[in-house]
Amino acid sequence: MTDMLVVGSLALDTIHNAQGTHERVLGGSATFASLTGAFYTGVNLVGVVGTDFPDAIVHQLRERGVDTSGLEVAEGKTFHWEGRYTDDLTSRETIATDLNVFADFDPKIPEAFRDTPYVMLGNIAPELQLSVLDQIRNPKLVIADTMNFWIDGALESLKKLLKRVDVLVINEEEARQLSGRHHLIHVAGELLDMGPSTLIIKQGEYGAWLFAGEDVFSAPAFLLEAKDPTGAGDSFAGGFLGYVASKDSTEPETLRAAVIHGSALASFCVEGVGPARLLELSKDEVEARVKEFQRLVDFSHP
Amino acid sequence: MTDMLVVGSLALDTIHNAQGTHERVLGGSATFASLTGAFYTGVNLVGVVGTDFPDAIVHQLRERGVDTSGLEVAEGKTFHWEGRYTDDLTSRETIATDLNVFADFDPKIPEAFRDTPYVMLGNIAPELQLSVLDQIRNPKLVIADTMNFWIDGALESLKKLLKRVDVLVINEEEARQLSGRHHLIHVAGELLDMGPSTLIIKQGEYGAWLFAGEDVFSAPAFLLEAKDPTGAGDSFAGGFLGYVASKDSTEPETLRAAVIHGSALASFCVEGVGPARLLELSKDEVEARVKEFQRLVDFSHP
Repeated sequence: MTDMLVVGSLALDTIHNAQGTHERVLGGSATFASLTGAFYTGVNLVGVVGTDFPDAIVHQLRERGVDTSGLEVAEGKTFHWEGRYTDDLTSRETIATDLNVFADFDPKIPEAFRDTPYVMLGNIAPELQLSVLDQIRNPKLVIADTMNFWIDGALESLKKLLKRVDVLVINEEEARQLSGRHHLIHVAGELLDMGPSTLIIKQGEYGAWLFAGEDVFSAPAFLLEAKDPTGAGDSFAGGFLGYVASKDSTEPETLRAAVIHGSALASFCVEGVGPARLLELSKDEVEARVKEFQRLVDFSHP
Repeated sequence: MTDMLVVGSLALDTIHNAQGTHERVLGGSATFASLTGAFYTGVNLVGVVGTDFPDAIVHQLRERGVDTSGLEVAEGKTFHWEGRYTDDLTSRETIATDLNVFADFDPKIPEAFRDTPYVMLGNIAPELQLSVLDQIRNPKLVIADTMNFWIDGALESLKKLLKRVDVLVINEEEARQLSGRHHLIHVAGELLDMGPSTLIIKQGEYGAWLFAGEDVFSAPAFLLEAKDPTGAGDSFAGGFLGYVASKDSTEPETLRAAVIHGSALASFCVEGVGPARLLELSKDEVEARVKEFQRLVDFSHP
């Protein structure tokens, strides 16, 4: 059994971008991570939605091999985020964050999910991420995402969490904030000292770095005209972990390839609004893009 | 004959950094480009120095295969730049720019150099770069460097120049400034429309992009603790062109490898103050670092 467990948010977002306003767009860290992980392996999803969450989406997730039996439907509305992206997509402004049923989210891992070997802790409160760890048994690899909000507001819990996760995925700015260092060599050293054996620093339009013990890997950015960056980081993490789970290996060579698969999924994610592009994507397209990533960095030196 | 011609500045700099103050440090675009190009091919150097320029340095250049017969010694002092780097080396402040004999630099290409097939126009006034092009015959590849100073102050000459060069090397910020666009796809499109068939966008700590016609290549950054970034860009360009000249090929595959060799030389350059590290560097060390670059981006995806 090499399934993956995804715990995080599901949302119905309102997104304003150069193309206009998009209402009730499927969002949330668990959503994107499940959709991308499911390209590689079975996904056990744990999260909460409100009674307004469309059944059709739950069916779509199931069709893709996502086990939704850990999806709690609570009285009330689904988590809603509203934001506006600048035309060049380099920054975004949050207009509204309505937690709704997500405010009381207390992840309950169904008994059938507790032995899932590969575990993704989406970007939720570190206390909740810790609570998930308390409920699972003998994971082979735990990956956690976090953000500035928790570094600012829940640093002690975050530090406790880091002692118990294998892979931290974090963007560059937040990595600098959490480590208090500037140069990536020092940033990586500090963060690895905090607990995880593996660190992935996402640099957006500049690619990503993987530090797996002594092994250092640079993943290129993929140049394309993005439509909507929402969910790119979660698509990355889901694709990364799905690939790892499908290989049932945590060797550096596997992690390197997994970073590229995650990057490929993230590059597709941003091509559509919300998960639109991911929902129409084929595995062949993913493989073709991975080959494009390989070609992007290929050189011989006779 | 596959030599390269380098035209640019030679300087004696004063550099303030975390390690202290360094006086009379060898500098200038032509200096760094000659030193790195000479790892691969014969270099024909054209520039001007004052009577204070140490003979010992000229001898060092000659020992490395740099033909200094185009090096003019003018009455007066050598170009002098003084600057202070922040401790994290992310920015620098210019304290003094004393052009001295460089103020009247009017490059005269010796007859023996006019058929050099590979030509580097270091970062000098576009009018002077154009004057070099008027003096040379049938180059196989011309590469030009420029900077914001000329984009601001000599845009029309720069545009004339771009119509006549094959490769433009430019840093990311200046590429955005010159193109008036933000996204790298658009930046590259605009700049290639201005004339060059090949574009290299340097991103400093994020690596570099090569756009060679339809071919797109991403070069990784190399993580190290730099001492002094002075001359890194010129070391890159010199190493790039030297490699191309040594292969006597302008095929995309050659250009890809050349970008990595240029990046390797630049990574050594920043390890010492001024060209100190380059002056003690062996070809074997360069080859070993090129292999490290290759390992940095290597992944298989079974």
